[in-house]
Formats: sequence, C-alpha cells, structure tokens
Amino acid sequence: MTQATPTALGPVLVIGTGLIGTSIALALVRAGAEVLLRDEDPAQLATAVGMSAGVQHASQKPDIVVVAVPPRSASYVMATASKEFPDATITDVTSVKSGILRQAVFSGADSSRLVGGHPMAGREVSGAAGARADLFDDRLWILTPTLETDTEHVQRAQLLVSTCGALSVEMAASEHDVAVALVSHAPQVVSSALAAQLLPAKELHISVAGQGLRDMTRIASSDSDLWLDILSENAGPVSEVLSGVVFELQEVLHALQELAAGDRDHQEAIDATLRAGALGRQRIPGKHGNPDSPFREVAVMVADQPGELARLFIAAGEAGINLEDVRIEHVLGRPSGRVELAVKPDAAEPLATALHERGFDVRGVDG
Amino acid sequence: MTQATPTALGPVLVIGTGLIGTSIALALVRAGAEVLLRDEDPAQLATAVGMSAGVQHASQKPDIVVVAVPPRSASYVMATASKEFPDATITDVTSVKSGILRQAVFSGADSSRLVGGHPMAGREVSGAAGARADLFDDRLWILTPTLETDTEHVQRAQLLVSTCGALSVEMAASEHDVAVALVSHAPQVVSSALAAQLLPAKELHISVAGQGLRDMTRIASSDSDLWLDILSENAGPVSEVLSGVVFELQEVLHALQELAAGDRDHQEAIDATLRAGALGRQRIPGKHGNPDSPFREVAVMVADQPGELARLFIAAGEAGINLEDVRIEHVLGRPSGRVELAVKPDAAEPLATALHERGFDVRGVDG
Repeated sequence: MTQATPTALGPVLVIGTGLIGTSIALALVRAGAEVLLRDEDPAQLATAVGMSAGVQHASQKPDIVVVAVPPRSASYVMATASKEFPDATITDVTSVKSGILRQAVFSGADSSRLVGGHPMAGREVSGAAGARADLFDDRLWILTPTLETDTEHVQRAQLLVSTCGALSVEMAASEHDVAVALVSHAPQVVSSALAAQLLPAKELHISVAGQGLRDMTRIASSDSDLWLDILSENAGPVSEVLSGVVFELQEVLHALQELAAGDRDHQEAIDATLRAGALGRQRIPGKHGNPDSPFREVAVMVADQPGELARLFIAAGEAGINLEDVRIEHVLGRPSGRVELAVKPDAAEPLATALHERGFDVRGVDG
Repeated sequence: MTQATPTALGPVLVIGTGLIGTSIALALVRAGAEVLLRDEDPAQLATAVGMSAGVQHASQKPDIVVVAVPPRSASYVMATASKEFPDATITDVTSVKSGILRQAVFSGADSSRLVGGHPMAGREVSGAAGARADLFDDRLWILTPTLETDTEHVQRAQLLVSTCGALSVEMAASEHDVAVALVSHAPQVVSSALAAQLLPAKELHISVAGQGLRDMTRIASSDSDLWLDILSENAGPVSEVLSGVVFELQEVLHALQELAAGDRDHQEAIDATLRAGALGRQRIPGKHGNPDSPFREVAVMVADQPGELARLFIAAGEAGINLEDVRIEHVLGRPSGRVELAVKPDAAEPLATALHERGFDVRGVDG
C-alpha cells in the first residue's frame, strides 16, 4: 500500500471530478501531493472538494494536468489545457487512445507534453461520490506517449501513476488500442453475442447451464452505454479481432453443417480451431504475470453454511500453503458446493493431505 | 452426502469400466447396491474390481444395465445388452443423446426399456484408476426416456441416479441435445475461436489481459479430442446456436467496419447486441437454480500470504454471513489480490462493515 509520505510530484490539476478523476485526486492527496480540481458541473466539484480530494483550481500553475472528462470531450479539453498551461504535462484516462491523442494534437495540444493514460481499474459506479483513494492500487495503468513526447513528461506521468499506487506499462497508443481490442473489447462483443442466444431460449434448456456458460457470459452484463462508446472509439482494432473470431466460427459452422448433413470429411476444421484455442489460451500469463507457473487444483466439497469456507482456508493456512486461486462451482438444488483451490504444483499433494486429515471431503487433485 | 444404506435398486451391470463407469459402480457400492462389471479390456476390468467397484459379471441377471463405453460403440452395446437381458432397464452416459438412442433402437434395442442418461460430472482424468465414488454427488444427471419407454424403467433409472448421489432432470433426447448445444457445446467453440486469436498475438498485447479474457477462454483448454467427438455428434444443434452467434458478431463487425470508415450511423446494431447480451445473461439461474437471488459483491484487497484468505473467511463466518461466491482477481506484479465476495443482497453492507471493523481493506460494495 502506498503510504502518505511526501512526493516529488508537483501540483496536479484534475479536470473532471467524476469517479476516475476524483479517485485519482484522492490517491494523490493520500500520498501528500497538492491537488487542484476543476469541473464544469459545480455539484460534482463541490462533492470532490467536500471529500478532501483537493482544492478548487483558481490560478495555480500545475506541473501535470489529468484530463478525466468523458471520451467525447477529452481531446478538446486536453488541447485547451495544453494552451492554458504551456509547461504542464498533459495526460488523460480514456480507455481508447489513438484517436483521442491524434484529435488532441489536431486541436492544438503540444505533442511534446502529451502522455496518454489508461488506468485499468475495473468497473465501478460513476460520479465523485463513488470515488476511492485506493481504486488504482496494484492495478495496471498504461501510458502512451506520442512520438514527440519529451522524456521529462513521460517520467512525470510515471510518477503520477506510481503515486496513485498503480503499476505503469508503456506502449504506443496504437499498440494499446490493439492490445485492449484483443484482451477486452472483442471478448466483450463475443460474450454479448453468445449471451444474446439465451434471450429466445427455453427456460428448461438454460436450466442446465454450468460454470462454463456463466464464465463466458459474465461480462455480457456490463454497462451497454459505456461499451457502445468504447467499441465505437476503437472500431478498427476491434473489428480486426472480431474478423478473426468470425472466420474461425464460420469454419467450424460450415464443418458442423456438413457433418449434420452426413459428410464426416469435415472434422479437420473443427479440430484445428479447438487446438488453436487450447494453444492460444496457454499464452495468457498466469498470476502475477508469470507464464511459467501453472497451478494444480485441489477439489473439495463443502457445505453451504456460514463459516465453512473459513474452516477450509484456516486449514490451508495452518498447513502453510498459499492459495493462488479459488473457484466455487455451484450445484443446483443442493446445500453444498465444490471448491477448487489452485496452488503451486508441489503444494497440491500436501494440501490435499492436510485437508483430508482435518476431515475435509477432498475430491481429488488435478493438473 | 449419500450414506451407505441399503437400496431398493436391484443388481446393476456396468459395461465399460473407464472413469465414468467405474465411478458409477463405486457410487452404487457405497450405497450398498450389488454391482456387476464388464469390460472388453481385462486390465481396466481388473483395476475396477481391485478398487472394489463390484464383481466381474458372470451369469447374473441385472435389473439395470449402464452402458459406459465410448460414444462410438454406445448404441451397439446398448442394443446387444437389450437383447442379452430382456427385462433390464438399459441406460448410457454419453453426452449427446438423440443419435445414439436412435441408432440403438435401429440396432435392435427395445425402446420400451431405453432411458438415455447424461451425468454432468465435469472434466476429469480418464480410466478406472481415476474413478471416484463421489464424482456425481450433487451433480445434475439428465435422463432422456424415449417416447416408448415404460414408466417402470424411467423410475429405475431415476433410482440409479439418486443412488449415485446425483439429481435427475428428465427431458426428451432432442431437448437435451439442444440444451447442451446452447449451454455447453456452442460456448466451447466460441471460447476456442476467441482463444485462437491469441495464438498469433504479440506478447505485449496479451500481457495486459485481465479476468474477462481469462474467464472467456478458460474452457478453451479442454481436451480437443473429446470435444471433436462431442461436437461432431451434436453437429445439428450446435450449428444452430453458432449460426446465431455468427449472425450477431457479423452485425457488430459490419457496424464497426462502417464506424472505422467514418460512418457513425451504425451504432444501433452494436447497441442491440450489447443489450440482448445483457438481457440474455440475466436468464441464467443463480446459485442453486434460483433465478431471483442476484447477489451483491463486497471487494477486499488481501495480501498474497498463507492464511490471508483464511483470516478473511473467518471474519465473514464470525459475522454469521454465508459467502455465495468468491472471485480472486489477480494483479500483475504485486503481492496482493482483489477478492470479491458475493453475498445475499441484505448481507452486503453488514459484511463490508464487519470486515472493515476487523481491519480489512474493503474496497466497496457493488450491485
């Protein structure tokens, strides 16, 4: 956790005191930084000031300006801030970067002081009132300098990020947009398209859904308005990834249709997609970014009562074993659940033994 | 948990002592049933007998025959068993039902004694050695009688299922195949097709992957050979669902391509898919099959050390709050993780308060 120690960061002006802007302000105040606030909505601004997220900006000169306004106005606000504060580093928080930075420069922002920013801080409520000083702790925060950005300004943006408790990763704006299209935006569309198939389905059919479908459709319940904006802004890279997905699905679909019609010569296309998927999945880094640490899973059946999970984790803790992940699989109509505990490979057998000795209903060790 | 009490189930012959067959046998033995075993592979049979899963079948007359052979031979084995034991209920365990039952009847099985079965017991290793008596405890086990199946034989199959500790759900074979195409088979293909996009991707791009992509691609690492068989066998229903997914994706893809080319008139198609997905997702029943119990989530940041999760769950247990679900979100490069605890709506605030009072780093209450 970041402590409230003095910081080398100069005055920071946060323009836009919604959830993200106010959270950044609170994180900076927590770290002892001087924070100035501006918002065209006096109520949002008053809320942020009332939360001690900083003081209303008057005539102070900021070292860095964080533009945390909605995507539609971000580039314009970056450009005007760049002119108003000719020495300040200018950064933003929008989740798609190329278009906004290009537009900001086009509108007159000084590209040598421009550093795009994307704090990856998960979904939350909106508005200053929902802001939290620790929203960015241990989160990735991607920085996208332009080709002309001076090192000094990149370093200042990095200091901003670390002061907020986050971890900065630097890449070009276009790289960023391709990366998030791949790992976040296209998966969102795929999840929605799959979940949309449930809308006309019979209740009986949906009733046998297991964990697989739940996992595949979880993000389909995200805020549609927000996602419409994000997808529209990153249309090019997202459509590239989706084209690939549609191509794979059409190959499989064609093969399945031929199979359904009695022609068994088409299994190869299905096999190819299944194998490519298994290999692709292996490329996702494990916990803490380490691709070389696959875990093993110990399955345990626990009763659905207060304290049961606690008892399980106490037992694991007593055995000195660190749990890397926990998955609870729900079971229809029964007062119990299957819990899978992921641990480092050499901890799996000791964990299973320790839990068994303590009377737990251990169901096996996988992987 | 099913106890080892006497059962009204008569002698059961399990043909095929692989993982599923032997697990069924072990579950039946646990419940006090008489179990007969047969396998054309003497080694598998010896392993199962050695595990006390039953005795080698000689000339005993079974009341029920469970055909647990690979899908390719299931219908033939069901037909021959039907002829060999003219009074026995005949059931199987294959994960696609229409084709196999039709083929079994075509091969001479008596449809009045045929009850298709599909124990939904999750992935495991294969072979008798990996069998477990409790593999089916608290699991769904779908039964698909034919139109001609006598009630007596359906009831016997239901008794088999409950004796194994599972929960039986009855539907027509064609319903079953459409249901599993929707909730399991099509999602598998979609997951694979999405994960396949990671194969040629840059490591830098994959490195920013979050929980969304992980959830969406988890099942892509399933056994490709097994899935090729399942998909091929259920080609018709799966291609129906996939057609719907491809249609949705193409609508979005087309809209995104128009947007990327500068035409903003196309947001409606994207919006429609996002909204349909959010509504579709809502139709998945909650824990224990109750669609009316959405949960709220309490987010907590915990250190990555043995015992930390235990401390958290002890605190929840002490507050008398039952955790419905747990999600651990991993954070790149930091020795901590964000844990989301799902609880009943009215337990969310008390849990947040209780955890906060015990010094936990509570990050908010969602939902």
